[in-house]
Amino acid sequence: MAQRREHDFLGEREIPKDVYYGIQTLRAIENFHITGIPLKVEPLFVQALGYVKKAAALANSELGVFDKKIASAIVKASDRVINGEFNDQFITDLIQGGAGTSVNMNANEVIANVALEMMGKEKGDYEFCHPNNHVNCSQSTNDAYPTAFRIALMNKLTDYKTSLERLAQSFENKGEEFKQVLKMGRTQLQDAVPMSMGDEFKAFATNLREELSRIEDSKRLISEINMGATAIGTGVNAPKTYPELVTKHLREVTGLDLSLATDLIEATYDTGAYVQLSGVLKRTAVKVSKICNDLRLLSSGPRCGLNEINLPPMQPGSSIMPGKVNPVIPEVVNQTAFYVIGADLTLTMAAEAGQLQLNVMEPVISFSLFTSITYMTNACNTLREKCVDGITANADHTQQMVMQSIGIVTQLNPIIGYEKSAAIAREALETGKSVHDIAVKEKKLVTQEKWDEIFTFENMIRPTFINS
Amino acid sequence: MAQRREHDFLGEREIPKDVYYGIQTLRAIENFHITGIPLKVEPLFVQALGYVKKAAALANSELGVFDKKIASAIVKASDRVINGEFNDQFITDLIQGGAGTSVNMNANEVIANVALEMMGKEKGDYEFCHPNNHVNCSQSTNDAYPTAFRIALMNKLTDYKTSLERLAQSFENKGEEFKQVLKMGRTQLQDAVPMSMGDEFKAFATNLREELSRIEDSKRLISEINMGATAIGTGVNAPKTYPELVTKHLREVTGLDLSLATDLIEATYDTGAYVQLSGVLKRTAVKVSKICNDLRLLSSGPRCGLNEINLPPMQPGSSIMPGKVNPVIPEVVNQTAFYVIGADLTLTMAAEAGQLQLNVMEPVISFSLFTSITYMTNACNTLREKCVDGITANADHTQQMVMQSIGIVTQLNPIIGYEKSAAIAREALETGKSVHDIAVKEKKLVTQEKWDEIFTFENMIRPTFINS
Amino acid sequence: MAQRREHDFLGEREIPKDVYYGIQTLRAIENFHITGIPLKVEPLFVQALGYVKKAAALANSELGVFDKKIASAIVKASDRVINGEFNDQFITDLIQGGAGTSVNMNANEVIANVALEMMGKEKGDYEFCHPNNHVNCSQSTNDAYPTAFRIALMNKLTDYKTSLERLAQSFENKGEEFKQVLKMGRTQLQDAVPMSMGDEFKAFATNLREELSRIEDSKRLISEINMGATAIGTGVNAPKTYPELVTKHLREVTGLDLSLATDLIEATYDTGAYVQLSGVLKRTAVKVSKICNDLRLLSSGPRCGLNEINLPPMQPGSSIMPGKVNPVIPEVVNQTAFYVIGADLTLTMAAEAGQLQLNVMEPVISFSLFTSITYMTNACNTLREKCVDGITANADHTQQMVMQSIGIVTQLNPIIGYEKSAAIAREALETGKSVHDIAVKEKKLVTQEKWDEIFTFENMIRPTFINS
Amino acid sequence: MAQRREHDFLGEREIPKDVYYGIQTLRAIENFHITGIPLKVEPLFVQALGYVKKAAALANSELGVFDKKIASAIVKASDRVINGEFNDQFITDLIQGGAGTSVNMNANEVIANVALEMMGKEKGDYEFCHPNNHVNCSQSTNDAYPTAFRIALMNKLTDYKTSLERLAQSFENKGEEFKQVLKMGRTQLQDAVPMSMGDEFKAFATNLREELSRIEDSKRLISEINMGATAIGTGVNAPKTYPELVTKHLREVTGLDLSLATDLIEATYDTGAYVQLSGVLKRTAVKVSKICNDLRLLSSGPRCGLNEINLPPMQPGSSIMPGKVNPVIPEVVNQTAFYVIGADLTLTMAAEAGQLQLNVMEPVISFSLFTSITYMTNACNTLREKCVDGITANADHTQQMVMQSIGIVTQLNPIIGYEKSAAIAREALETGKSVHDIAVKEKKLVTQEKWDEIFTFENMIRPTFINS
Repeated sequence: MAQRREHDFLGEREIPKDVYYGIQTLRAIENFHITGIPLKVEPLFVQALGYVKKAAALANSELGVFDKKIASAIVKASDRVINGEFNDQFITDLIQGGAGTSVNMNANEVIANVALEMMGKEKGDYEFCHPNNHVNCSQSTNDAYPTAFRIALMNKLTDYKTSLERLAQSFENKGEEFKQVLKMGRTQLQDAVPMSMGDEFKAFATNLREELSRIEDSKRLISEINMGATAIGTGVNAPKTYPELVTKHLREVTGLDLSLATDLIEATYDTGAYVQLSGVLKRTAVKVSKICNDLRLLSSGPRCGLNEINLPPMQPGSSIMPGKVNPVIPEVVNQTAFYVIGADLTLTMAAEAGQLQLNVMEPVISFSLFTSITYMTNACNTLREKCVDGITANADHTQQMVMQSIGIVTQLNPIIGYEKSAAIAREALETGKSVHDIAVKEKKLVTQEKWDEIFTFENMIRPTFINS
Repeated sequence: MAQRREHDFLGEREIPKDVYYGIQTLRAIENFHITGIPLKVEPLFVQALGYVKKAAALANSELGVFDKKIASAIVKASDRVINGEFNDQFITDLIQGGAGTSVNMNANEVIANVALEMMGKEKGDYEFCHPNNHVNCSQSTNDAYPTAFRIALMNKLTDYKTSLERLAQSFENKGEEFKQVLKMGRTQLQDAVPMSMGDEFKAFATNLREELSRIEDSKRLISEINMGATAIGTGVNAPKTYPELVTKHLREVTGLDLSLATDLIEATYDTGAYVQLSGVLKRTAVKVSKICNDLRLLSSGPRCGLNEINLPPMQPGSSIMPGKVNPVIPEVVNQTAFYVIGADLTLTMAAEAGQLQLNVMEPVISFSLFTSITYMTNACNTLREKCVDGITANADHTQQMVMQSIGIVTQLNPIIGYEKSAAIAREALETGKSVHDIAVKEKKLVTQEKWDEIFTFENMIRPTFINS
Repeated sequence: MAQRREHDFLGEREIPKDVYYGIQTLRAIENFHITGIPLKVEPLFVQALGYVKKAAALANSELGVFDKKIASAIVKASDRVINGEFNDQFITDLIQGGAGTSVNMNANEVIANVALEMMGKEKGDYEFCHPNNHVNCSQSTNDAYPTAFRIALMNKLTDYKTSLERLAQSFENKGEEFKQVLKMGRTQLQDAVPMSMGDEFKAFATNLREELSRIEDSKRLISEINMGATAIGTGVNAPKTYPELVTKHLREVTGLDLSLATDLIEATYDTGAYVQLSGVLKRTAVKVSKICNDLRLLSSGPRCGLNEINLPPMQPGSSIMPGKVNPVIPEVVNQTAFYVIGADLTLTMAAEAGQLQLNVMEPVISFSLFTSITYMTNACNTLREKCVDGITANADHTQQMVMQSIGIVTQLNPIIGYEKSAAIAREALETGKSVHDIAVKEKKLVTQEKWDEIFTFENMIRPTFINS
Repeated sequence: MAQRREHDFLGEREIPKDVYYGIQTLRAIENFHITGIPLKVEPLFVQALGYVKKAAALANSELGVFDKKIASAIVKASDRVINGEFNDQFITDLIQGGAGTSVNMNANEVIANVALEMMGKEKGDYEFCHPNNHVNCSQSTNDAYPTAFRIALMNKLTDYKTSLERLAQSFENKGEEFKQVLKMGRTQLQDAVPMSMGDEFKAFATNLREELSRIEDSKRLISEINMGATAIGTGVNAPKTYPELVTKHLREVTGLDLSLATDLIEATYDTGAYVQLSGVLKRTAVKVSKICNDLRLLSSGPRCGLNEINLPPMQPGSSIMPGKVNPVIPEVVNQTAFYVIGADLTLTMAAEAGQLQLNVMEPVISFSLFTSITYMTNACNTLREKCVDGITANADHTQQMVMQSIGIVTQLNPIIGYEKSAAIAREALETGKSVHDIAVKEKKLVTQEKWDEIFTFENMIRPTFINS
């Protein structure tokens, strides 16, 4: 394989002639191989690096920091990176030391070499377009990396929100479908009072829809960038008007509503926006996990469980027990939720470990957020398509359970008082008799007429207050 | 000790005659003694229970659900509970089973007996004012408990916000005081480029001020209550117009901007608002911990550390090493942060464990939030009063460190290029020479005039971009 | 209130004349009040501090480091502290900065003043017995604090182990009681194959008994102490033979099998033993929580749940739903488990935050372990006494569920093959028919004789392999 | 692409003719794609599945459960899987619902089809060798999956232990190399007393070597398997003597010291061994992270930090600051540690979520442990090779820091007492003078002779107790 030679601060190295990355990327892949997962698995991040380099070149060009011809080549090369043409050149492992320097240099080197090629030069002829002096001009890893990361997050959240919104809608649809299904409501796993299964499913929709606003709130924090901060936020090596200008260009090239942080010293080390976003992902994971626990519980059985609903069978449930079908989709979603909760802890520790003017742990923060968002998006889609959309209700069974329950005695409270209701409950529990038999027939505490007034379908689902 | 007899669903028991709580509270203290920490350590929670019972009595009275005379007695008794007169009667352990039933019944019983006393009746004569039938009327633990909890949180957050705001202001003041102090900025613990110590401390202020908005955002979620949901959100046993009415009364008696949840089924089991608030507390803890790490690092020494700042000495630092003074205040604040991060996990697991129509783990959620907010409030006050307010800077030392550093070479980048700067850096590193000597005297890459133009105090603190 | 004056490195202060603690304890309570929980809530820790001071005095005396009269007074004063006579003088907040210096000085000062009093001197006349020069002689906080902490832990674990062992035994007893109860085994909440309820409860016992060995393993790590390490493990200020000698004395006065660490530099900062112990507590919490989840699930109902077992009713379950009795004891135990898991995270972060020659976060490590062990001990006792001991089985109901289930088809696998069994299962599921009717009557795949051979009580509980 | 048709309990599907997996694997990849990471990335797990199937076939054959010809074909097919020949056929996503059923069926199907091919049959002709009836005979996912998982873990831990042992040895070597380097020991980041840098590095070795025993302890728990438990531990569908027999075969084919659990009901759902192992991984991660924090701190500078040691430069440290070299290797190891701590939480939640007779969350438990062990192994190797092996000490600088420090005053304690030492310390701090000048020259508290006796190199590194 033909090689070219490149050098950096630490010395000279050979690099395969046809690759677009350079010596610093080479060092990165030698130094970092903890996960084995390369940058290119996050194409939105590669794209975002392209956006940052393009906007920087436009701003530098406008401010006359370097030759417009070079700037123009960088812009064109960045556009090709943005379009995904060089994704395979982004090979840095997702977790690295160096606070993202390797990722930034991977982008700087690829873009420089693409630009050189488009200028008719050899790869590595950096005097005509240099990864540091030109592509990275007026930037530092400390502003370029987090800015690209934030842009990638914002775009990634768009898909995630869609998957969540659709999942909520699927629950909403089921809520509509099940609105006439009477079932026992339960608190503390004990029979409580009757309710509509429709309301139960609509509550799942409500529960998840709230997350959409939380994601939007977090996106606002994420949209604050620190371009022009350079090394530590003092803006060393960047022209005075550059920060606002590059932010304007970045808004234009990305179409995102980005804003420049007011305190660049703080913005350069702060990871609060990631902690907030991760907290929101965790919150959604907690909710989704609770919902999946419920779905598994409600579909337990078929004969020795609650058996209120049926999840669509997705695969044989056992390698040994014939006919067993398991709630495999909620199960995989539960596990995804546990992953996200664990990733939030990883991120929390990384955020706490920031020191002085920079948080060097940003790569594992990126890793945590990228995997969590991807996994949650996949989980929401899977849950909707392969489970919720196909749920059916065992309406006869659930209604029968309600009528034979003791919990319905609560509806007699306002008429006969808590203590008499409690006595009926106790007797029912001890004897196995029905509440109706005890209240109406035996103790004659309620007339059959009153009973019928109280225990209409509608009144059990949405109880009207009936005074004694 | 004189006793009175009370009974409940499970039987009859003797209770000391002069206590205001009743049989169910008695069972609670027999059943639950995990932490040994009683409800009364959170007087704002006791007060909030008083508010809830008062508002419910007002609404029930207005709707004619029971006698106005009883309602009036409940209102007056609740007022005395609100004023803290009966705090010592709230003895239920902070962590209980039963989803808060014991706490709710503790309040119901105390208020019933106070009301009875005020009505000239004996304690325990519940026919005249019953804990369940009257004090708890139109309520369930499932709405009364979380509503009281949320009111308590909102009031508790007020103090917390003040402590945080004051801490931020203290950092801001120091930022002003240190604005002319030149020091080395550091990334990855390595010397980076110079900065103003004032900017470093102002960044701490910025960092913490952002938390105030996050707390406000969370308070909005917390302010959504579910009064009238009763058992599972269907409103069984409550009049139709009761939910809006009791919410209105609760707004008035508390002075808080409370709103009624639109989906009461969901609101009755959802713990999302707590997860969000806890996430914000965790975020602040992460930030405060990072800041304390920095303070400890910057004050390390006195002779073999960074020695940039001096924390006020609070106590002898060692039982054996004379003259040693340690950063004990940041240390205790770090530990508080770790507590809060752990408590967030406890809460997360509790939130995930909710099942069907209720989250039975709310007591440990309360425990986590109450302790976290208390500890964080204490920590912010301690950090401000006993540390930040008294910090002094070693300005001569920090300036001297900057001028002997290699990091200042970065400021030559735009003039001589990254690679030549790197060569100077390497030589300085290897020989121990200063950047000035190499750049100006030996290599004559920069004239003394240009050097002086670049390395003014002002230009090091806020670098102006100087093109070659 | 009469005062005496004391001074330290930072100046002079007044102290109430009758207290035994001194100026450094005074500073501690002024500096640290995050939790409001004083040292004295952990009497085993106070006692352990007494042990450490006594053993040090004995060793110092033997080595002639100071006057035997002073040593003797310290020994006697320590004995009184060991006996709990001065618990109320240990007022330092459980979480402090200073790596335990305040706790160590609290002990040094109390013992010095008790000794002075016994010598007929005034409190504060430290020339005759000095907190640092005598009580703390040949020690540093960095060895005295962790050693006392470890001794306290070992004693505390004894109670905890007993509570766990008894809980396991209670499950074992129930296992014996329920051994003839046939019930449906479930995997993934779906009906699987039949089993004995006795085996289910014995498995709980097995599950918990394994924890006893894990605790013992951890105790071995905890029993390694670093007395004589003094400041950082170099043993500065302590005689060469002191470490082994003081360890020998400490073994004698405590009756515990303590050993001296071989690498004192490492032992002085290492918190690995705490991480390990906390991990084991977490493991047990995870198991106990899983068991409580099962108990709540198995007792769900009474009519719309699994209803396999009855937990003893401990309190009325609802302030609104008459007759409702909830699994409040497992619920409070679940919450305790969540606390312990959260505390493990707090401890983990504290352990990771150690720097260089000391881990300054030991106080929050102590706080986490002390509260976790206390809470777990309480939880195990509560669970046993108020729940497991009183559990009853609904044997008729569970047997009936088994016979009407589809899961029993698995037992036909070896005879008719997985695929035919699966066809029967599918038909049963679709038609509601029993496996027996389909297999024996309709499809005649199994004779009634063979059926009876397979589905004996004993063979369902412990299936014998019957080949086709 | 040519297709073959297969059917299962849910219906019929087309499968590419040349693949070895079957219909259930097909369903698995359609159902589960959360992570996108296939089973084959863990070749030791694929291998372990081969071992399990081989041992089961041998035991079944010996017990005459099915035809020896089929058994022999399964054994041969398993051998080829064990050798890694069919790794590419193991495509199930690492996180799935179904408690591992898909993984087990992936193995059953591949082995069945390989066996069929070797028997001269077509793939899919399952009557001659059936995935369930033959390959999975006398097994259930509930014993086959965890057994294979445990075997894979044991083999994976071997490599991990080697990497950790080598890392410890590397620190030990440095300890030897640096044993004559005098440096300041620090507690709470404040100068404490002098020590040998060799002892500091040897302590790192001690710290990590302890982990080797913890891993061995955990391996003992992992080595307990539940083969023969089948569905829920009752052993339904397996011959009575099968469990011991298959365990014996498994010991032989793997060469591992495996033992059969005594309580198979418990062993089938218990995840305690994983919790323990993960806890140990977390403990090691905590230690490694602390060590990396120290390495970064000790190498801080070069001019404005501690500058005690030099880490080998691995890559240019900044895209903007010339000459900056960062501690990138410790940084990536810190991040790995955070990942492992997060993964431990994921696993903890999964373990807690087990219900009744099975823990359905085992796949995410596998995912957590596999990634954590892989990442930790990589991190240990990277840390050793690219960092520790190349560390050098700045011995002159560290010695100079010691002699100009105030901390050395501690060594005067036994001679002049704590209070006089403290006075010297205070004066040194306030005036900037050296301890020597104050103690010997000004105050004449120590003669120059005594001073020289105390402050020998050897006596600072390993202080001898010198009485006054």
